[in-house]
Formats: sequence, structure tokens, C-alpha cells
Amino acid sequence: MKTVVWKSLTDEQREKALERPAISESASITEAVEGVIKQVRTGGDAALKALTEKFDKVVPENIQVSQGEIEVAETRLGDEIKAALKQAYDNIACFHQAQKAQPLTVETMPGVVCELVTRPINRVGLYIPGGSAPLPSTVLMLGVPSQIAGCRKVVLCSPPPIADEILYVAKLCGIDEVYNLGGAQAVAAMAYGTETVSKVDKIFGPGNAFVTEAKRQVSNAHQGAAIDMPAGPSEVLVIADESADADFVAADLLSQAEHGPDSQVVLVTPSPVLAEKVADAVQRQLKALSRADIASQALDSSLIIVADSLAQCVDISNNYGPEHLIVQTQNPRELLPQLDNAGSIFLGAWSPESVGDYASGTNHVLPTYGHTRTYSSLGLADFSKRMTVQELSSDGLQALAPTVVAMANAEGLDAHRNAVTLRVEKLNNNN
Amino acid sequence: MKTVVWKSLTDEQREKALERPAISESASITEAVEGVIKQVRTGGDAALKALTEKFDKVVPENIQVSQGEIEVAETRLGDEIKAALKQAYDNIACFHQAQKAQPLTVETMPGVVCELVTRPINRVGLYIPGGSAPLPSTVLMLGVPSQIAGCRKVVLCSPPPIADEILYVAKLCGIDEVYNLGGAQAVAAMAYGTETVSKVDKIFGPGNAFVTEAKRQVSNAHQGAAIDMPAGPSEVLVIADESADADFVAADLLSQAEHGPDSQVVLVTPSPVLAEKVADAVQRQLKALSRADIASQALDSSLIIVADSLAQCVDISNNYGPEHLIVQTQNPRELLPQLDNAGSIFLGAWSPESVGDYASGTNHVLPTYGHTRTYSSLGLADFSKRMTVQELSSDGLQALAPTVVAMANAEGLDAHRNAVTLRVEKLNNNN
Repeated sequence: MKTVVWKSLTDEQREKALERPAISESASITEAVEGVIKQVRTGGDAALKALTEKFDKVVPENIQVSQGEIEVAETRLGDEIKAALKQAYDNIACFHQAQKAQPLTVETMPGVVCELVTRPINRVGLYIPGGSAPLPSTVLMLGVPSQIAGCRKVVLCSPPPIADEILYVAKLCGIDEVYNLGGAQAVAAMAYGTETVSKVDKIFGPGNAFVTEAKRQVSNAHQGAAIDMPAGPSEVLVIADESADADFVAADLLSQAEHGPDSQVVLVTPSPVLAEKVADAVQRQLKALSRADIASQALDSSLIIVADSLAQCVDISNNYGPEHLIVQTQNPRELLPQLDNAGSIFLGAWSPESVGDYASGTNHVLPTYGHTRTYSSLGLADFSKRMTVQELSSDGLQALAPTVVAMANAEGLDAHRNAVTLRVEKLNNNN
Repeated sequence: MKTVVWKSLTDEQREKALERPAISESASITEAVEGVIKQVRTGGDAALKALTEKFDKVVPENIQVSQGEIEVAETRLGDEIKAALKQAYDNIACFHQAQKAQPLTVETMPGVVCELVTRPINRVGLYIPGGSAPLPSTVLMLGVPSQIAGCRKVVLCSPPPIADEILYVAKLCGIDEVYNLGGAQAVAAMAYGTETVSKVDKIFGPGNAFVTEAKRQVSNAHQGAAIDMPAGPSEVLVIADESADADFVAADLLSQAEHGPDSQVVLVTPSPVLAEKVADAVQRQLKALSRADIASQALDSSLIIVADSLAQCVDISNNYGPEHLIVQTQNPRELLPQLDNAGSIFLGAWSPESVGDYASGTNHVLPTYGHTRTYSSLGLADFSKRMTVQELSSDGLQALAPTVVAMANAEGLDAHRNAVTLRVEKLNNNN
């Protein structure tokens, strides 16, 4: 890991140091995904089968996973992993249940009642990537809130063969339909529907460059589907002072680095001594990892920043806006009011990132790549929408009428004014 | 207005009847906007001045409106309009203040504390269109929530010359900077910043095809800015039964129709008698409007649907998903639990759409074009973001450790497991 001393850098060097690598925008991916979406929209199930054979090199008997297969998957799993997934389910359910919005009713003026009501998004689609290891944790992070929000139809796509762990969690979360589908074709199928695949209103979940591009394309199309948030490489920033345990900090940095070669890993500390200790510990711990290769690629672009003070550490973090922010200082909670622009914050020595990735109860789907400035940690709100309601009494309308009339006149909208004056006249005639 | 009897239509005809007109995707607009954004990013203020001269045919002395100009604008306004805008401000503030999120703290397991904290988006940009009449109401709808959310920097762009009403409301809402800028160049300036214009994190507000396309482009760029929601033509659907006053319903349909030739206007009723009365009243009221020309264009593509029952009216509305939904029935509140996919709902005879457009307290920035399925009425949440926090005690971590370890093993992520086991070992050694 490279170490820099913040005060020795110019403004330009500081900006450069915190710059994320450009996300390559490949015209060939854009075109390939456009082709896949078109193929799925015109060819339906047949196109899905052909694309799955082409990209996943397998031909599942059916696009939809049967109830029987889901039941069998459960019997193949050990008790330990089932208990773990159930515990994680319970904690995530507990935290997301608490996010349920209460209906809001306000009388803004006598006789003018305004309300905010929350309704589930009706049909949602969850994308779970395939790859070397299954990701049942992501099924929990998407499946639990969709269940608690009360979405009427929840479907899940994952490239075949789908791991038993994923099928087990899909059942825990009451997911209605599971499809043997990966890549851009899965996103296209959920956005537009096919003979077998149900069209959904919103698509959630991480994926490779093709999945990300497909989500972007369907969310830009008016007849497509909404999506959860923009994607980007995963990242962690750790703020630690001299009281921190260097081994803990190193372990946290590595657990981010092992996600992928493009993972971003930053330590910010006012202590040069800790900086050195952590750098050593990282090298020591790295050797034992099965994904040491991936982690060490990520570490090549990672950074240790030695700052003047904890206040400067906070500034640097707020400016960078990390997806995960770990605070291992003497009094981590004291810093919380100053912390901003983070997806999820981990306070203190006993709160490693991996508890949030799996089972503390918070969601691990988080804005990254600086989108923490405007996007939220995924939560129940993302599976719901808020509608407003207003109901005026005749007295309320009469009281508000002069305001509406004056504004409609200022904006030159006669019919807006008439909709009020006509009613007020009728009220006056009846009195 | 065209009238159709729902039960006489095939499924295909029903779908066709509720289809919105395609939003033209013009390659020439896309290219023109790409050019403008590039010009602003490279040319800064000088490019903005050149573009303003080209498109708005005026050259304001300064890009930023001075405090003095804002003070003078107020003195030119009559007391009546100032009082109206102040009343609207108060009602909107009252309803949006009530939307403030309470901090949430949940102990999901003993020693595992999860929190949801809400923070304002730091820098926001508001776009207010120009055109034949000023739109101070839109300044209120964007400015009030940005003020209540506590955004640190709020800037506003509107094509010059900016109306006194807009400057007055900008002052009421404590907007920090007002710029003489319209069109795609205003969006580009706020997304990327120039010498004079402050870069913002998120851009809000309606606009023409160029503004909409510019918002789409900057929201797709990772270095750009987030945006409020996808744009589309404004629309209303009225559900009315035989108890409704045909003149009221006609006035509400017309107040939507006068917004623009592409406005969508739909009446759904179980009463053929009311359908006829409303069609007559619309023709009668139309004649007196100053914008009769615009309204009658919108009415050409509008529709009256005669349904079998109120339940069918609700189904049709939920399927269409209108931006504005007006319910004028004997017992409108009875229908509320069944109503879904609407931006804002107006209950009863004394709640015309224009009260929500201006002053009831609800926001008039609403999802349209079917995006009500997934997007919410604009509110305080859109000017804020939610971060999660977790803090575990050493006991909490020990209790959760087996769950995290089992899941990390299942996902093949050693370092995730190590971050926990290393800590637990240290705790065991200390005991």
C-alpha cells in the first residue's frame, strides 16, 4: 500500500489521490447489450434459451426453477449454513421492519388536509450474479425488504446452475418466481417480460458490466423498468487513530480488497505509527488468503493517508464519500455527527465491515463511486413509493381560494383559477 | 372529447386506449445537448454567455443575479400576489416539515445496534423554466423542501429575464444563488460548475426537451449530477360518479388541458349521464379560456371512459397510473385504500387539482407517464439521503460471529471471515 502525507500534497495532488479510476464506457458493451435487449423483446423465451446457451454454456430444462427443485436444494444444505442464513434473515428483517413509514396527515390550514401514503412497488425483479461463489447474502439484502414492503410479485434471476444457498434464501424471503437467467438477457426479460418471465416495475441488484449496462438502458427507456441505483466498484475508507488495533484495520482493508481487483481501499489516520503498522499487517495477513491474488491487485491502487488531525480525516472522508466507512478511534461515536456522504458506517473496534455485509441487519447494497452524495443505503423506501393526498372541506377551499386565484393569475392559467372560482360561486349561491 | 364504453372494448383496444403518446427520441436533440454540455465544460462562463445570447436572445450583464436586483424585484410586486405566495409557502413548509425523518435505532440482537440517519444533500440546483408566464409555484415546490432539508447550497437557474415573482420566492426560500441561465446550458453549468456557477450534487425541476435531455445526460455521467425523476407530459385522471358536479369535473379536466397540447386528460365514470354532461360542460367552459387553443389541442387526444362500476374505474386508474388523480364520488375516502400508482390524489368536490398545483401544501412535482409505479411525489426525502450505522459491543460481535463465519465460508471470502475471527480470538485471549 502506498502511503502519502496529506499536508505535503498540493490541492491538485490531493484531488488526484482521491480520484477513482474511470469506469470504462465501452461502445462494444453498449452495442452488445442493445442487441441482447432487442433479441429478448422480439424472441421471448426462445431468445432467452439461445442466449443462455451462448453465454452460460448450459441449457436448463426450464427457464423457471420449479418448486420441487427449491425444496430439494434445502435438503442438501447443512444445518450450520441454514442457521446462519436464518439468523441473518432475522436481523435484516428486524432492521428493515423498523423502517416502515407511518402514514402522515397534516392539516396545513383549517379544512385543508394533506397526507403522505406509502404503497409497495407492485412487481420487483432481483438480480443475483453467478460466478465462483454463490451470493446468498445479496438475496437476503434484496429479498427481505421486498417481502416486508409487501411487493405483490417478486422474481429473481441468477445464471444457472443456481446454488442451493440462493434457492434456500429465495424460499425464506417468499420470492414468487426464480429464473435460470443471467446477464443482460435476464435484465431484459424482467424489464419487458416474456412468455415465462413476469415483467417487473423495478430491477435491483449488482452485476458485471453487461448487467450494469442493461440496467442503465432499460431505466432510460420509458417502457422499461426503474433500477435501484448506479453501479460502481466496491470501496472502503477506514478512519483510525493511534488507539486502533493494526491487525483489525488490516483485516478490514483486506476484506474489501478481496472483493475484486477494482476494489478501492483507503486508510486515513493522524498516526504515522499506525500507518506503518497497518501496512505491515496487511502484507502479513494477505499471504494466507485464498483470494490473495485478487486482493493484492486491489491493494496496488490503494492508499494510506497520514493526516494532521482526526478532523482532517473526517474532511477527507466526507470529500471522498466512501461506500463503507469504518471508524476505529478512541471515541468513534463522537465523530458521527460530522460524518457525511457514506453508504454505511461501522463504529468501533467490534464492528468490522463483514458484519454489515452479512448479518448485522443493515443493507449491503450501497451507493459507491461518490454517489453517496445523493443516493441512500438501500432500504424499505426503495421498494415503496409515496403518494400525496389532499382533501379540502368547502370552508378550506374558500379560505385557500384567494391564494390559488392570485397565483393562477400570475401564471396566466385561467382554467386553474376557474376550477376554484366556479366552486366558490356555487358555495356562495347555496348560502 | 372522445367517449368509449369500456365493456365494449377488447383487451387490445383497452390497452391502446390507455396508451400514452410516444415521447419522441430525437437524435438531433441528443447531439445538440451533447454539444452544449461539452461547450460549457470546456468554455465555462464565456460559453454560457455565448449560448445565452444564441438561445435566449439576451445578454444579461451578469450570469449571477445580484442581491440588489432581488431586493428591487420584491418592491415591484403587488401585496396580493406577495400574500398569496407567502400563504402557499407556509402551507408547503408545514407539509414538508412534517416529513422530517426521525433517526432510527434498532438493537437487532443484544449488542448489535443498527441505525438509519438522514442527512441533507449538500448542494442542489433548481431549474425553473421560462416561457410565456413565470412559474413561481415551481420555485416554491423545489425551494421549500431544499430549505427544510437543510441543503447547504441551493442555486436556481432560469432563462433571462427572470420574473419578479420568481426572484421574490427565491428570497423567501433562502436560495443562495440565482443565475440568468436557461436550457441545456443551465443544466450543464450546475452539473459541472463554471467560474461563476456552483457545481451541485443533484438537479431538480421541469423543462423543455433540451432541459430534459440534458438532465438525462448528466445523470448518466458518473462525474455529472443526480436528478429528481424522469420527465413526461402532465396528466390527470378523474374518477367521478353520478353524484359529481359536471361543471367541477369539466373545470378540472380543462385545468390540466391548458398546461400544454401534450397534456393527457382522462375521465372514468360508471355514469353515462355524467359522461355526457361533462363533455358538454367542457365545450362550454373551453370557449372562455385565454389558452383555449392549447387546451383544445390537448382535448383532441383526451378520453372519457364509461365503466361498469366504481371498482372498474379504480382498476383502470391503477393500470394507467396517473400523475394527478381526482376522485369526485359520493364517498371518495372509501376508495383511497384501493387507489395505487398515482402521484397526487385529490379527494372530493372541494379539492380541485389547482389547489395542489399551488397551495394546499403537497408538492406539484410528481411522477408522470406511468412512472407512478415506482417513483414518488417529490418530497423532503428527495433532498436528503439515508446512511446506515452499526455499532457492535464485543459481546454482540461474539454472538454474531458464527453467522458471519458460516456465510463468509459459503461465499468463499476468507478475509471477511478473518476480520471477525481475529477479533474473537483477541477477545478470548484477553479473557
